[in-house]
Amino acid sequence: MTRNIQVSELDRRAVEDQQVEIVERKGLGHPDSICDGIAEDVSRALSQLYLDRVGKVLHYNTDETQLAAGRAAPAYGGGEVIEPIYILIVGRATKSYEQDGRTVELPVDSTALAAARAYLEEQIPELEYGTDVVVDVRLGEGSGDLQDVFGEEEVQVPMANDTSYGVGHAPLTETETIVREIERGINGKYAAEHPEVGPDVKVMGKREGDRIDVTVAVAMIDAYIADLEAYKAAVSNVQEYATELARSYTDREVNVEVNTADDYDAGSVYLTVTGTSAEQGDDGSVGRGNRANGLITPNRPMSMEATSGKNPVNHIGKIYNLLSTAAAEDVVEQVDGIRDLQMRLLSQIGRPIDEPHVADAQIVTEADVDVADIEAEVTEIVDGNLANVTGITREAIEGEISTF
Amino acid sequence: MTRNIQVSELDRRAVEDQQVEIVERKGLGHPDSICDGIAEDVSRALSQLYLDRVGKVLHYNTDETQLAAGRAAPAYGGGEVIEPIYILIVGRATKSYEQDGRTVELPVDSTALAAARAYLEEQIPELEYGTDVVVDVRLGEGSGDLQDVFGEEEVQVPMANDTSYGVGHAPLTETETIVREIERGINGKYAAEHPEVGPDVKVMGKREGDRIDVTVAVAMIDAYIADLEAYKAAVSNVQEYATELARSYTDREVNVEVNTADDYDAGSVYLTVTGTSAEQGDDGSVGRGNRANGLITPNRPMSMEATSGKNPVNHIGKIYNLLSTAAAEDVVEQVDGIRDLQMRLLSQIGRPIDEPHVADAQIVTEADVDVADIEAEVTEIVDGNLANVTGITREAIEGEISTF
Amino acid sequence: MTRNIQVSELDRRAVEDQQVEIVERKGLGHPDSICDGIAEDVSRALSQLYLDRVGKVLHYNTDETQLAAGRAAPAYGGGEVIEPIYILIVGRATKSYEQDGRTVELPVDSTALAAARAYLEEQIPELEYGTDVVVDVRLGEGSGDLQDVFGEEEVQVPMANDTSYGVGHAPLTETETIVREIERGINGKYAAEHPEVGPDVKVMGKREGDRIDVTVAVAMIDAYIADLEAYKAAVSNVQEYATELARSYTDREVNVEVNTADDYDAGSVYLTVTGTSAEQGDDGSVGRGNRANGLITPNRPMSMEATSGKNPVNHIGKIYNLLSTAAAEDVVEQVDGIRDLQMRLLSQIGRPIDEPHVADAQIVTEADVDVADIEAEVTEIVDGNLANVTGITREAIEGEISTF
Amino acid sequence: MTRNIQVSELDRRAVEDQQVEIVERKGLGHPDSICDGIAEDVSRALSQLYLDRVGKVLHYNTDETQLAAGRAAPAYGGGEVIEPIYILIVGRATKSYEQDGRTVELPVDSTALAAARAYLEEQIPELEYGTDVVVDVRLGEGSGDLQDVFGEEEVQVPMANDTSYGVGHAPLTETETIVREIERGINGKYAAEHPEVGPDVKVMGKREGDRIDVTVAVAMIDAYIADLEAYKAAVSNVQEYATELARSYTDREVNVEVNTADDYDAGSVYLTVTGTSAEQGDDGSVGRGNRANGLITPNRPMSMEATSGKNPVNHIGKIYNLLSTAAAEDVVEQVDGIRDLQMRLLSQIGRPIDEPHVADAQIVTEADVDVADIEAEVTEIVDGNLANVTGITREAIEGEISTF
Repeated sequence: MTRNIQVSELDRRAVEDQQVEIVERKGLGHPDSICDGIAEDVSRALSQLYLDRVGKVLHYNTDETQLAAGRAAPAYGGGEVIEPIYILIVGRATKSYEQDGRTVELPVDSTALAAARAYLEEQIPELEYGTDVVVDVRLGEGSGDLQDVFGEEEVQVPMANDTSYGVGHAPLTETETIVREIERGINGKYAAEHPEVGPDVKVMGKREGDRIDVTVAVAMIDAYIADLEAYKAAVSNVQEYATELARSYTDREVNVEVNTADDYDAGSVYLTVTGTSAEQGDDGSVGRGNRANGLITPNRPMSMEATSGKNPVNHIGKIYNLLSTAAAEDVVEQVDGIRDLQMRLLSQIGRPIDEPHVADAQIVTEADVDVADIEAEVTEIVDGNLANVTGITREAIEGEISTF
Repeated sequence: MTRNIQVSELDRRAVEDQQVEIVERKGLGHPDSICDGIAEDVSRALSQLYLDRVGKVLHYNTDETQLAAGRAAPAYGGGEVIEPIYILIVGRATKSYEQDGRTVELPVDSTALAAARAYLEEQIPELEYGTDVVVDVRLGEGSGDLQDVFGEEEVQVPMANDTSYGVGHAPLTETETIVREIERGINGKYAAEHPEVGPDVKVMGKREGDRIDVTVAVAMIDAYIADLEAYKAAVSNVQEYATELARSYTDREVNVEVNTADDYDAGSVYLTVTGTSAEQGDDGSVGRGNRANGLITPNRPMSMEATSGKNPVNHIGKIYNLLSTAAAEDVVEQVDGIRDLQMRLLSQIGRPIDEPHVADAQIVTEADVDVADIEAEVTEIVDGNLANVTGITREAIEGEISTF
Repeated sequence: MTRNIQVSELDRRAVEDQQVEIVERKGLGHPDSICDGIAEDVSRALSQLYLDRVGKVLHYNTDETQLAAGRAAPAYGGGEVIEPIYILIVGRATKSYEQDGRTVELPVDSTALAAARAYLEEQIPELEYGTDVVVDVRLGEGSGDLQDVFGEEEVQVPMANDTSYGVGHAPLTETETIVREIERGINGKYAAEHPEVGPDVKVMGKREGDRIDVTVAVAMIDAYIADLEAYKAAVSNVQEYATELARSYTDREVNVEVNTADDYDAGSVYLTVTGTSAEQGDDGSVGRGNRANGLITPNRPMSMEATSGKNPVNHIGKIYNLLSTAAAEDVVEQVDGIRDLQMRLLSQIGRPIDEPHVADAQIVTEADVDVADIEAEVTEIVDGNLANVTGITREAIEGEISTF
Repeated sequence: MTRNIQVSELDRRAVEDQQVEIVERKGLGHPDSICDGIAEDVSRALSQLYLDRVGKVLHYNTDETQLAAGRAAPAYGGGEVIEPIYILIVGRATKSYEQDGRTVELPVDSTALAAARAYLEEQIPELEYGTDVVVDVRLGEGSGDLQDVFGEEEVQVPMANDTSYGVGHAPLTETETIVREIERGINGKYAAEHPEVGPDVKVMGKREGDRIDVTVAVAMIDAYIADLEAYKAAVSNVQEYATELARSYTDREVNVEVNTADDYDAGSVYLTVTGTSAEQGDDGSVGRGNRANGLITPNRPMSMEATSGKNPVNHIGKIYNLLSTAAAEDVVEQVDGIRDLQMRLLSQIGRPIDEPHVADAQIVTEADVDVADIEAEVTEIVDGNLANVTGITREAIEGEISTF
């Protein structure tokens, strides 16, 4: 088998060299990200359930979760949720399976709810499950044709049954890196030491030439903020942290602003009870936020496909988005001289998904490198990634790869 | 003020002396009782919320809770819930209140959910909140006219704005006592020592002449039952316990049967994961089960009014059912010679509820007692109960009085 | 087969002769009655669906429907619904059936929704389906044991699998008749000529000695009422109609009041957009209103069993309530000299339901009649009713018998 | 005021000249498009409601609609829906408004439901509202700050309160045109004469060099298809129609395939009861399908912003996506020599939205045209579009502009 891998020059400037660049990341606690996260963890839990009970992943698709915002009354020192957030998990799943002459009943609804609860308790800990947020589930039976392609013992590469498209990029630009790392940093190390910082962190980066403006919106948690002065200090601390972090990734001019919509005179600040704007007025759903690489990058081609929640065994849209990103990163890590790489995968109906219609690596090289010089190397790495397509499935099931 | 209290002879035999008597009690874990219990605890929580926040009980009514059964796969040693039970709390509540020139926002939805969760965790502990059971809430705004009649400092007796009717009885017959005590015993002391016994205990008593047949249905919890032999033993233990208990209340012939619908040969037994039939196939709602005295007694007049969940400050149907029962019990406790007492209260529109249109005590006396001899005493006790009508409200809010 | 039919003297005065009598009827448009009506029509539609598709009635039970009130802004000349009423149909139904080696899929959800829509459009025509009222459905799979006892060709009498109880009465007292006929009249002939009268008509009758007070509450429909004067006229017309109707059934003193809660000075009247209080603030559910004979009669023994929505083939509670009422009416129609008849049926587990444990006809005779004289006749009529138990099932499926 | 409009050369080949091009359109009846369409019509209905009642558009946002698929049993000649599709409208809306000293209650829920019903009846006529599909609504109160910027008499340009981004393109490539026109044709003229064709038409175009492959999936409606032969004929007719249509737009080689997933031997064809895959297994939500220009175009920068359902008065993401597309089309229509135009708008927080931070027109010219030659003309047209930004709002409210 020879895969159709094409390596060519990309017919545009590297994004890093374009005049205007816009990058956004919706943090873990953003209503859209909450939906992505729940959908993906429900998917993982179902995969695991099927593997545990029948030894192979059965048909399911849970890439729809709808969040309707609640109502809250935040207050310095601690307010309260008044109307709960409502989250509806929607999708299809196989609920019973004939095996060895008996019918195995599969608790897909309970499993989905348990996964959602675990996710919320981990990621939005101030949100009390069952009172601050009500989660319900509507998982219909699938179309009946079981997809038993990914088992514990034998692993088959599934066939593409749709024309689907995935796209990935590497390396990240400075602005992309900064946007991603600021969100990760605030929601990681920083939050660990600053309990007033909620998980709903939204970061927008805009670069014009060599000036990078970063706007950060952080939902502050009222229980840890005594008054307006404390709030101002909290904002200021985030500003300092984010600025320092950003500067560690670039020599360009960086300007960071935090919670710019605040109006201190009017007493209007970004204070929340639970650390997410979902508590008051912001609805959310799956596939509306970050792409598979964790960013929204209008300067780059993006797939509309929602990656979170889809079955990682046979949903080619999910697999190709994750795989193209992983392949692009692999190439850039192992091959010198690449300034911008865009990796596209296009499926071929009726062929195994590791044999795409075309795998298309388009490259902007460093000034002193020619695409022809690295073509063979790139081809080999992409080929290796395709050969290991089921590795993506396994990583998705194990939760070792993020989808948003 | 002179209250219109009438004491007369009841024109029928005491229920104890009738030829056929039927009595039923749906235990705490029965789907209808779960709804009654949630509705009543939601009511108490809202009363308390209003008292805490604005110093008086505002308008609400939460006497509607709907339970749609789940799906479960019980198994000896421990099965699982497959589809969660769905519970919808329905009603009206005041969500904001103007006080001292500011608007107080009242977290009625969150309070209702928290009350439901606390109730379920206490009464149906094997049911995991949020995964085995999903609780949602639809509390609309009330009609807008606030009912601030019951405050912390001043207590007014509300006006009757409806023609309503309450009825109570005392003393319980032997059969009634047995039915009630068997459920209480199994769900109390017995369950404490026998974890295999679930809270869904339904007791039906039928007396014909001097023979009492008691049928008990107990939802056994699979995690504590290893196999069919263990199940049989569990049933047998309940049978012995209930028989002994019943015999302590009567000299009549008593026969107790437990889980009569079991079919051992077909392997069909009353095994559950959570201890309630709501996990599989049995729906429930408020006001469909026990009356305010905890029993269903077709031999006696009953009110159709659902007592659980209603506002105890101004809902006359609730107050009169509780008050007539309490008054009947008081009379029988303090006055000798009463074999059967039926206490009816009928409201008078536009008058304070402690001045009913008529308070009607109908009595079957012991052979050697004449109604005329005890009339004054009975009247005085009933009058005292009416004078203390707000005491019923307070007991309901404090949870010192049961409604089902 | 000899049925255990007992005929005896009733040990109390006829209700007609008691000093105080209370009777209530919740009309067709009352929120509880709406639920009863939907539940019963869903039941009939499912029975018919099963008969059409597989030739016999399969297992189902749809005796739970929850209504959460909407919000409306009525106005003289025509207002509008602001938030829809929400109705949730809850129950169990068989969704697929193996027949002749193939699986028949049964559209139970769609059938239930279609039945609810047809019912609402017929009974509450001002309520626009889908915008003024949202109806959803949660029908779980039943317990799996199919109950194919009532087919088109062969009809078997099912076995009692529960201890259940039904009770019926005849004849109606004057007060009962008046209460029932006023509601029927207003919702029938009167409404046909007076479009301003909505179907939510609640009638409460109270008799003390020889004085009957009737309180009628009628939800007026705003589109047909131009102003307060028109409203007053509408109320006055109902009052005249109801008074005349009542007087045609009694020689006692009758006093009728309509919409007594109105306060003209405050501009507070019983005006609605749709003709039902469910549009604003009044929730409802099945089994909370009228008993199987269409009335709430605290002077008489009543069954707590919800009759509406239950499977008429095998649900003994439903069958016995309908059958005892029908038998009582038959007896009174055919046998002279009966002043009050109370008919009770008690099931015997494991026996066909036409062989009750006891069928108990208790009678208050006219002064000149002795129970012994009519015992044989009564027994024969009751026996005939029991023999024809499946006739009740057929009437329920055909909709020839009302359950509320 | 001088607007910051930049015109420059686009640093890539025109999409028409790229080697591989992928284009997709989800037709009107696709589950995602159904959600887009409902969300947008709900938005329009709310705008109109606010204009009618209070003379200006108040705060709302309804860009979330979730569809959970139903279950259906299609059959040649006519099958049936078994479980209804469930659609939940989610968002925020102002429910009451103080005006001239009185509170105006706004029927936002009923209005949203009516809009959804009208949309479904128009676009998916085989879907019976209320039985085949249940629509519910959860519109929370907004954040309370009213946005009264767009009234009937005075029109203000709102301020940007967020960093937002819109992007548009013109002209369409041949492949884009073909994909769009095939869907429009099938759902337009063709369907009018071929009732067997359902509105769920999905078109995928893939061009490699000068060969265009078009894959069309059409949900056939069973009532109009007698048997497999008729089905094959229906597919063949669509294939012919689409091929001819495609060829009218290009001289390239075109190949059209219809319903490629069919397996005639297995009897597996794309037959539906209602003409949409939402009836069985395909869920949907807003913002997951077509971008504002009706296409999904991975070869071009796209905005992730969901355009459908957003408030067209003040939601800058919606306005900029529609405006950039309109401006690009205007420029290309009026200026000769443009092969590919990419129009980007980036907001400036705190400035009126007609004064973007940057309006960036990037152009690939025809070989004989220089960007400098047309710069002035382009600038003027873009400036005119920006000056008329409220025209976009009005068109959106009037429904003269499509969002998906």
